[in-house]
Amino acid sequence: MATVSVVYHSGMGHTKAMAEAVAKGAGEVEGVKAELLAIDPADITDGRFTNNDILERIDASDGVIFGSPTYMGSVSGQMECFFDATAERWYKRAWVDKVGGAFTVSSGPSGDKFSTLVRMATLAMQHGMIWVGLDMIPGGEGLNRLSFYFGAGGQAGQEPPEEAPNEADKKTGEALGRRVAEVARKLKSV
Amino acid sequence: MATVSVVYHSGMGHTKAMAEAVAKGAGEVEGVKAELLAIDPADITDGRFTNNDILERIDASDGVIFGSPTYMGSVSGQMECFFDATAERWYKRAWVDKVGGAFTVSSGPSGDKFSTLVRMATLAMQHGMIWVGLDMIPGGEGLNRLSFYFGAGGQAGQEPPEEAPNEADKKTGEALGRRVAEVARKLKSV
Amino acid sequence: MATVSVVYHSGMGHTKAMAEAVAKGAGEVEGVKAELLAIDPADITDGRFTNNDILERIDASDGVIFGSPTYMGSVSGQMECFFDATAERWYKRAWVDKVGGAFTVSSGPSGDKFSTLVRMATLAMQHGMIWVGLDMIPGGEGLNRLSFYFGAGGQAGQEPPEEAPNEADKKTGEALGRRVAEVARKLKSV
Amino acid sequence: MATVSVVYHSGMGHTKAMAEAVAKGAGEVEGVKAELLAIDPADITDGRFTNNDILERIDASDGVIFGSPTYMGSVSGQMECFFDATAERWYKRAWVDKVGGAFTVSSGPSGDKFSTLVRMATLAMQHGMIWVGLDMIPGGEGLNRLSFYFGAGGQAGQEPPEEAPNEADKKTGEALGRRVAEVARKLKSV
Repeated sequence: MATVSVVYHSGMGHTKAMAEAVAKGAGEVEGVKAELLAIDPADITDGRFTNNDILERIDASDGVIFGSPTYMGSVSGQMECFFDATAERWYKRAWVDKVGGAFTVSSGPSGDKFSTLVRMATLAMQHGMIWVGLDMIPGGEGLNRLSFYFGAGGQAGQEPPEEAPNEADKKTGEALGRRVAEVARKLKSV
Repeated sequence: MATVSVVYHSGMGHTKAMAEAVAKGAGEVEGVKAELLAIDPADITDGRFTNNDILERIDASDGVIFGSPTYMGSVSGQMECFFDATAERWYKRAWVDKVGGAFTVSSGPSGDKFSTLVRMATLAMQHGMIWVGLDMIPGGEGLNRLSFYFGAGGQAGQEPPEEAPNEADKKTGEALGRRVAEVARKLKSV
Repeated sequence: MATVSVVYHSGMGHTKAMAEAVAKGAGEVEGVKAELLAIDPADITDGRFTNNDILERIDASDGVIFGSPTYMGSVSGQMECFFDATAERWYKRAWVDKVGGAFTVSSGPSGDKFSTLVRMATLAMQHGMIWVGLDMIPGGEGLNRLSFYFGAGGQAGQEPPEEAPNEADKKTGEALGRRVAEVARKLKSV
Repeated sequence: MATVSVVYHSGMGHTKAMAEAVAKGAGEVEGVKAELLAIDPADITDGRFTNNDILERIDASDGVIFGSPTYMGSVSGQMECFFDATAERWYKRAWVDKVGGAFTVSSGPSGDKFSTLVRMATLAMQHGMIWVGLDMIPGGEGLNRLSFYFGAGGQAGQEPPEEAPNEADKKTGEALGRRVAEVARKLKSV
């Protein structure tokens, strides 16, 4: 059994909706268990994130998919505080060879989401993870309609999270989850 | 009189040492006043940064130079929390046409500092700022010895801040400060 | 009189249409002359671009706006060959303090255009140029509808260049041209 | 038997030296055959690269490691022309799930090599490839002394290719080759 963790911060619920879609996709892969891990801002004191349970669950995961809103051109401050808290794992090389992926949500079609996805891939590369993006060009039924490749992008502004990101974006998130889960399962089985 | 603010977060004092060099360079330009604004982690609650004084000082500045350590491949969580707190200024277009620049410090020669500098430039672009990097290729006496262009890079690991970043890196920071200050002063004078 | 050059490569005419809009915007600024410089693939032999006239026109320009389609996640090969041909200017520091900007066109809303814009800004930073992006958040009448900040993005697939990029994208290009031209004129006047 | 292709362009021989080290590392993995594919500038006419043999060899490969000098902040023009020539494979989704990696060489320690590595990862993401960087933090005997993670960086200026990149950089390249080869072999065996 391979485990894929979807670790995300959501400010207004849109990234949470996307995270649920990503976890749904990952969990649909046979032999894969998906779990959602929400970054809780209450765990941040003086800009430092502390939550051993989340770190230990990632330790035990074969795949990790990061999710964050795009705020001001990159991940949210809360997500960045979480990233800093992974430094000890980095130093111990604890997450080498885990399979990584990412998704992000912001109000514009582009909205510098590319920057956020690459920032999350950069974290994964520092950890020695293996990176899996989308494998689809923009296609039928709006799949990957925003045309990202490093991961999945969703669009949401002031609408309630029930409405945005829309179905096409969530299906794109599901596809990302499935894809990361498949690679994680394969690599675990070898 | 033009004002250039050097807004930085420093974890162990190395980025502070670099910030002081940058501010020194900016302040040496005739007709320019430089000020140092430190991001205090105590101003972050639940991942949200609140400090109106700092935001208002930037409102009143003609140039803004951002400084952060590179942690796990981008700016520190604390700096990112500060960036999120500029969203209202973004919406009101309050910082359009300010002159921006950046510097960062980490332990390796590259150490993904490029990522951090571009992340800070991305913030500035979202604000409609005008970006000024270094104008020097790696040169004599170690100036820009690490070979960055989007801003200034310094190197420091576990050494005390009195020793690292070294003199060459600090001189590079001074050059960045002078350059941003000169452009800010020129644009203000028109 | 300040001169702003719009240097572009266009494969199918869409980037040319955008370039004309950018040049129109730049030329509307009082005291600014805009000129279009097309990269001709015939000037590339064995992957090396040679055309002294274009390089000398840029030498004589106060602002330079780069334009390229986004092909496979970055600028076109032809544009990259042109960039390599600027190495001698880089070494002589000939383009320091020129004002730079960029635009790109591809078929998707995002389509990794962010990557292309940052690649062009990276070139400008290596030359010691001053970077000017868009100053507008996505707004009325579709201005900056794709939500880029490092420069202007246009969308065009297989439609003829008369139809795509659309009017909103071209107006966004005009706004970029005006903005770069204004900063170039101001800095020249000091 | 898995095949890993090392596809590179080298201007002065430094990137070739690095490519040979990368291929050596890849070929050391049991069950993996490494092959070197050099981009020949003579195959570029009017900025278009044409060489079906190289594309077909990549078609038949399980892993692909891209190598290029960093020129003016990104890959060489010749490499970019080759990238454009992969568009048909992109459209047909022919390279989905291949394992990708990258290395680059330039004269400075940083020298914007991060930009080049991310540009090559962006290409791979557009193709739906799986990305493998280095798994090592800067360590003993100079391994990854320049501190890159998205791939391997080498340093070389005007020295002859026998001298630069140095042994540490080439060992870093070997490690990258081994790592990409191991992941490619594993995924092929499932």
